[in-house]
Amino acid sequence: MNYAIIGTGGIGGYYGSKLAKAGKDVHFLLHSDYDYVKQHGLQVNSVNGDFHLDNVNAYKSADEMPKCDIILVCLKSVNNSLLQTILPPILKPSTLVVMIENGIGVEADIQESFPDTYLAAGLAFICTAKAAPGVINHQCYGHINIGNYSCRDHSIIETLINDFSEAEVVANEVNYDEARWKKAVWNMPFNGMTVALKTQTDVLLRNKSTLQLIKDQMMEVIGAAQACGVKNIDEAFADKMINDTLVMTPYSPSMRLDYDNHRPMEIYYLYTRPIEEARKAGYKMPKLEMLEAELRFIAMTQNN
Amino acid sequence: MNYAIIGTGGIGGYYGSKLAKAGKDVHFLLHSDYDYVKQHGLQVNSVNGDFHLDNVNAYKSADEMPKCDIILVCLKSVNNSLLQTILPPILKPSTLVVMIENGIGVEADIQESFPDTYLAAGLAFICTAKAAPGVINHQCYGHINIGNYSCRDHSIIETLINDFSEAEVVANEVNYDEARWKKAVWNMPFNGMTVALKTQTDVLLRNKSTLQLIKDQMMEVIGAAQACGVKNIDEAFADKMINDTLVMTPYSPSMRLDYDNHRPMEIYYLYTRPIEEARKAGYKMPKLEMLEAELRFIAMTQNN
Repeated sequence: MNYAIIGTGGIGGYYGSKLAKAGKDVHFLLHSDYDYVKQHGLQVNSVNGDFHLDNVNAYKSADEMPKCDIILVCLKSVNNSLLQTILPPILKPSTLVVMIENGIGVEADIQESFPDTYLAAGLAFICTAKAAPGVINHQCYGHINIGNYSCRDHSIIETLINDFSEAEVVANEVNYDEARWKKAVWNMPFNGMTVALKTQTDVLLRNKSTLQLIKDQMMEVIGAAQACGVKNIDEAFADKMINDTLVMTPYSPSMRLDYDNHRPMEIYYLYTRPIEEARKAGYKMPKLEMLEAELRFIAMTQNN
Repeated sequence: MNYAIIGTGGIGGYYGSKLAKAGKDVHFLLHSDYDYVKQHGLQVNSVNGDFHLDNVNAYKSADEMPKCDIILVCLKSVNNSLLQTILPPILKPSTLVVMIENGIGVEADIQESFPDTYLAAGLAFICTAKAAPGVINHQCYGHINIGNYSCRDHSIIETLINDFSEAEVVANEVNYDEARWKKAVWNMPFNGMTVALKTQTDVLLRNKSTLQLIKDQMMEVIGAAQACGVKNIDEAFADKMINDTLVMTPYSPSMRLDYDNHRPMEIYYLYTRPIEEARKAGYKMPKLEMLEAELRFIAMTQNN
């Protein structure tokens, strides 16, 4: 059983290093950090204990990689078009591709290009970031949920979860649709609003007007989920997300970090696509539509 | 027939000076600029020709003013509570109070405190600003529409319109409800969005996403107007407002100027109140609700 890590940033670098440290056969695709990691290995500075990988199977092109049984895709979804050339050389007929990305509709789009490939969603609950070439900082949490999208050989998913456990990563299998929409309940309000108002989660929740707005937006996601057939997410889940966020330390979601670092924001899979899916199911998300428009304006006028 | 100008800023200073220049008996209430104007008069720098008033009937307190037949209230609506003490000493039984302010619900609230007073709305279409103490800069437009709210003596309104004409100010009588809601169709999207996105009208309309958002917000106002009984505003009016704005020079609406100058924004009468009126009539304005929440957040965190 071997692994490919596509995208060795905060997420891919962390999970890949944990698997490698546990003795799994892991192959990392790198871009700008290839030379550094090839020579110096990977350093993980983690709340659960720092460690270093001396010899890393590092590659600068997928053409040089072995075919792999499990591929963890840890790209930003704005770069998914790269998968058209990255995946073919490393796919076996039974490879499981796990999309550890934000948003709604990611797997459906990949499946269109790779109709027979087994796909799953990886939903990472983790604060981690690449601090420097070859250096991953892991600040909190770390567990990952796996939602099966189109894998007809369930034993591969069991192996993945088992390997994660051996690597001291808490991993659970969850229902795909429910998991993607549940994550959207948090992601859609907080990612965009922290960019639109240049703020952080705690300030949004301390202000009465934006607290209500965040709740309204969460209810739009829940309404959309229900319209799309995911029935068991309700208002109590929105309240739980708000309460969980209230006890978190002030937090800048990934989109805010992308904005601050002048990287493209994941507007399409975080907003456009779920709004589109909901509309197809006859449900409108007006406040999140407005947020999408504001983000597109910000991306166009302030980020480039 | 004598006039009181309550608030001698860009609006009050301009219209009051035009009336005084035409020989009308005009009494100006001033605050910080009283000493300057008392001594130096008022200077109007206008696209239609500059002029200067040497002797201005200036007052620093309403208690010193004569009772007036027509009172033009040119305050920011955030200061309307001042009218509780300003109006009583200058009101006659038949005085007409013209509220030249933005928003929905202004007259209803004043009427509660002054149940027998004749009220009208003044809807000013003008670009004007106080440039310095006693100096008014008038850049463009200038006409004013008068909507009767509760005046039972129509001859006063006719006199006002006639006096404006003699003062070379284009003035027309319009339907109160229709005029207030029509102005809201422009005011609600552009005032708030230029603050929320720190931009100007032209940039909002050049961006495809925000152009659509502005249109959506205008349609919310039109839906609210219809729910509140104003039936003759339709989508064509929104398109006209957008097209009219496209040919305007890049423009910062009054709320953006208030924001830039660290003055309180007129969130209540421009957003809270119309949203409330619509809701009472069974109509929701989700995108403008979101804009209200964003503005309240901005007022709370960035403006003070």
